[in-house]
This record gives sequence, structure tokens and C-alpha cells, in this order.
Amino acid sequence: MNIDMIRAAADRLDGHARRTPLLSSPFLDEIAGRRVLVKPECLQHTGSFKFRGGYSALSALDADTRARGVIAYSSGNHAQGVALAAAQHGVPAVIIMPADAPQLKIANTRALGAEVVLYDRANGENREEIGEALAAERGLTLIRPYDEPQVIAGQGTTGLEIARDANDMGIEGADVLVCCGGGGLTSGVALALEADAPTLRVRPVEPAGYDDVARSLASGGIERNEQQAGGLCDAILTPEPGQITFPIMARLCGPGVVVTEEEAQRAMAAAFTRLKIVLEPGGAVSLAAALYHGDQIAGDTVFAITSGGNVDPAIFQTAIATFGDGS
Amino acid sequence: MNIDMIRAAADRLDGHARRTPLLSSPFLDEIAGRRVLVKPECLQHTGSFKFRGGYSALSALDADTRARGVIAYSSGNHAQGVALAAAQHGVPAVIIMPADAPQLKIANTRALGAEVVLYDRANGENREEIGEALAAERGLTLIRPYDEPQVIAGQGTTGLEIARDANDMGIEGADVLVCCGGGGLTSGVALALEADAPTLRVRPVEPAGYDDVARSLASGGIERNEQQAGGLCDAILTPEPGQITFPIMARLCGPGVVVTEEEAQRAMAAAFTRLKIVLEPGGAVSLAAALYHGDQIAGDTVFAITSGGNVDPAIFQTAIATFGDGS
Repeated sequence: MNIDMIRAAADRLDGHARRTPLLSSPFLDEIAGRRVLVKPECLQHTGSFKFRGGYSALSALDADTRARGVIAYSSGNHAQGVALAAAQHGVPAVIIMPADAPQLKIANTRALGAEVVLYDRANGENREEIGEALAAERGLTLIRPYDEPQVIAGQGTTGLEIARDANDMGIEGADVLVCCGGGGLTSGVALALEADAPTLRVRPVEPAGYDDVARSLASGGIERNEQQAGGLCDAILTPEPGQITFPIMARLCGPGVVVTEEEAQRAMAAAFTRLKIVLEPGGAVSLAAALYHGDQIAGDTVFAITSGGNVDPAIFQTAIATFGDGS
Repeated sequence: MNIDMIRAAADRLDGHARRTPLLSSPFLDEIAGRRVLVKPECLQHTGSFKFRGGYSALSALDADTRARGVIAYSSGNHAQGVALAAAQHGVPAVIIMPADAPQLKIANTRALGAEVVLYDRANGENREEIGEALAAERGLTLIRPYDEPQVIAGQGTTGLEIARDANDMGIEGADVLVCCGGGGLTSGVALALEADAPTLRVRPVEPAGYDDVARSLASGGIERNEQQAGGLCDAILTPEPGQITFPIMARLCGPGVVVTEEEAQRAMAAAFTRLKIVLEPGGAVSLAAALYHGDQIAGDTVFAITSGGNVDPAIFQTAIATFGDGS
């Protein structure tokens, strides 16, 4: 896993992934007490940065392997990213999803051209067994959501873009806040910044109760979450940091920042009111850290990668109804 | 009013206005029956394209005139655009607003550094009289919302960006749908496209009941709306096309498209679900035309400039609660 893989991924993604802009608002700067530059990956294809990793992984396969198709386990953003990337390559994608996933997500993944295979988690069906049988039968390649070098390389292209913008703007010494689940985006961005903007420092951000990366960085070894599911920030809830991603984060990242679910909702409302973008709770924790935990952040400018916007209308409505004045 | 003024405005706005990207979604393409490319001016500074015109007008003044300050009448997007542009130039801005305007809009305009002067429209106070007295006393320059060449020039920079993207993508013969009030954005974009992408054609889009531009284009003379206020699309409700903007629109635009308020709300929900952007009703009518009036549109690709996102949370909640599946 190295910077050359990220640069190669950027070449493959050129003209396919969207180069997201930087957004800002004087109102957010005032809350944060410093300039806040938001990298809105919710505007990426399929509504999250996951398309970068999915496209990178698909495009890195040799043509014969790719032609047989790919498989992924996901009920969320990774599913859609892989499905669209496969469709754009004209190859089959099988996505294993729980039968009780939201109907809209299942419909969306199918509409992006994927074959959705449902499993019944309540009755103990094992998604790995189902997936392995299908993969063996059809010669499908598994695309892991984060512990996979070409996926990390794709997510890292976000960091190349931030480095270029920071250098153009003459920004040094800033923290880069990243919504962190398994660490694919976090480690990829950290590697990109190490190469192209080494005075910038990545800070992983997690919701309280699911702060495995913050605790792992503090202890120096991989720590697990006690809870595995149920939080509002479902997109970034993973049991523990990845085997590939954690050593990169341990070497390059500053301390983790932990925010509450209420702070994530307030950040969603602030992004609605001040930036006119739609964030899901797990995609808003970075902005929440910038706005409400400034005492833990260094520098006159902070970057926040808001990583996704695939949120149920009811959850979004609650956030803006409760905190809709953006203060 | 000519293309050279738009190019000069683009030079002045360089590094100040945001160059908005083009967004798209296969789901929107499917609804529309063609490729839909959305130019999200809701992501512009202050949440609408109005910042372009405000900054253009401020920056075009000679330094002595500008130093005395500017004045505008607006309860909405033009107020915020002028206020921020004046603050960035370090000169005073006076905004005349109705005393019963939403408190948040008044607070926002003040927070952007403007002096807000309230008038009581219920008791018959005349905003022009108040404004003219203040302007004479302090030597303020009036910045009109649309019938002002340097404002049109600023809005036209949106068209230069679309022309460049269309030419880069090899797109010819497409309609460009523009949310239309007084015609500042519509006429500016039409002039820019005439020069830089002459096979593209601007189509003004208005809400039913406020279709003065569509009727004026059809009759060849300026037609007024019977209703003057009260619609959901408040940002684009004007009594009639401008004296400067109408001849430009009459020469360059295709027929107007009229959408219902319900279609505007459905487009807001579709933009929420598929593009992860926040639109106000008046900023969504162009997308509504693309999605629901495809029979009136030419070409395999259509552009829609979604012009603003300054929407009350309650109105946004209603739209996504009612039409939140984005279909």
C-alpha cells in the first residue's frame, strides 16, 4: 500500500469520479472559531466517497477476472459504489444484502444494475457462506469495503485533491477531519497527504460508543467496539480497525475525535442551512468535530471530509426540525 | 449589455465566486428520459447565484463610489449576495427589508455585515422613499436585482461555465433550463451561450400563475402577472420581465416552460435523494421541467441550473416527507 497506487487510482478515476469542490460559510467559520473547508463527498456519484474505492478496485482487475464479475457484502454505501462501478465497466455485480435492509436501498442497488442476493440474518443464514458459494460457482472477485489495497487507493484520491487545493491556497499545518469506520478513507487520505501536503494531519472522527479507532490509536493496538450496531451513524459502524488500515493510521494520524449523535445531527442541520448539502449522520461527524470540538483541533483552518449523504428522509427531517437554524 | 461585460465580470469574480460543478444521477436520467446535468448554484456563496451579480456590480464600481456604500431592496437571495459582496470589498451595505420578513433572513443579512433597515409594509411605508432618502443622504449606490447590466454580467458567468463544460464534453444542441424571475440569470446565461456555445438554447422556467416571461415570449411584448406574491416559489416571483432583460430573452431564448408547485416540490425531493443538494422551491423549477416536462425539451442531454437553496426547514421537510423517495 503506497502513494504510487493512489496516483495510479487517480489516473484510472479521471473522468469517472467527480472532483468534489471545497465549500465554506462565514457562519460555520464563526461557530468553529477558524476557517472550515468542507470536502462534500456526498456529491460524489452514488452519494458517497465509496464510488472511488469501488471504481478503483474494479478498474485494477485484469480484464478476464473483471469480466467474470465481482461480489460485495453491504447494505449501504459500498454496495452502491461497487454496483455503479461494475455497471460502468459492463460486468456483473452481486451484492449480498440482509433481507430486512430498507427497500429503497435494495431497489437502488438493483436499479444500478447489480444482482441483489438477500439473506435472512434473523434465521441465522450466513452471508459469507452464501457469498463464497456464489463466488466459487461463478468466479466472482470479492471487493472488501476497506481492508483492500485498491479500495484504499481509490479513497486516497480524495486526499490528493485536498493536497492540491491546500497547496494552491497556501494552507499549511491544518488538521483534516475524516469520518472513520474501518479506516479505508482515513488511511488513504493520510497516505496522500504524507506525500503531497505533509504538514497536514489526518484526524479520524467517530461517534461515541463506536470509537474503536480513537482507542486503538491511543493504546497502540487494535481495540474492538462492544456494540456492533444500532447507532444513528450506521455508515461508519465497524467492529474494529482493519489489518491494513490500522498500521497506516497509527503511523500517520493524530488522535481521534469522538462526537455525540446529537452533535452529528446538529452538523447535518448546519450543512443544510449553511452549505445546502445533504449529509447522513455518519457522513457528518467530521463537520461536527470541526464545529463543536475546536479545542481539540490545531491551526487557523480545518478541513472536514463529509463522506456521504444517503440518509432516510425521516432521519433528515428530525435533524433539521430540531436544529434547523444551523447554530 | 454584451459578452465582453460578462467576460470582464468573470475575471473580477475569479477566486471569489465558486465555480460550481455539474451533478448527475442515473435515476434522474431515467425519469427524464435523457441525460440531466444539474448546475447547482445553491452551492454558490450565500446559497444562490445572486452572489455572482452582487459581486460583479460591487467590483465594477469606481473605488470612490464604492467606498460610500451600496443599497438594495430585498428580503431574500439578492440581499445576502449584495451583503457578502460588500463585506468582501470592505464597504457598507444597506438592505431595505420588510419588518415581517423571516427573522432568520434578517439575522443572516445582518450577520453578513449589512445594515438592515426595516419598513412596515402593512402600515403603508414605502421602501423606495426610505431607500432614496438614505441613498441621497449617504451617497449610496443602488444595486438592482436584475435590470442592471453589471448584475446581468455577473449572473452570465454561470453560462460561461456551462459553455466550457458543454464544449469539453462535446455536447451540442441541448436545452439549458433556467429558473426565471426578472430574467437576470436567464438573459446573462443566454448571452454567454450565444458567444461560447451557440448550439445550446436557454429555456426560462416559471411556476404556474407567475409565468410572465413565458407569456411575454409568446406574445412578443412585456406581460404582467396578475398575482404578485403568495406562491411557494417566492424567490422567482416578479411582476414582469425587466426592460433590459426582456429584449435579450426575446432574441435568444426558446419558449418558456411552466411547472406546478407540486412538481417543484417533487424536484426538491429528487435532488435531496439523488444529488444530495438542498433546493428552495423557486430554485428547483428548472429541474422540475427537466424531469416532468420532457416532451417540451429537445436533445439527448438537458442542463438545469438549480439556482438557490435558501429554504425554510419546514418547507423542505414537507417536500421530502411527501415526495422523499425521489421518484
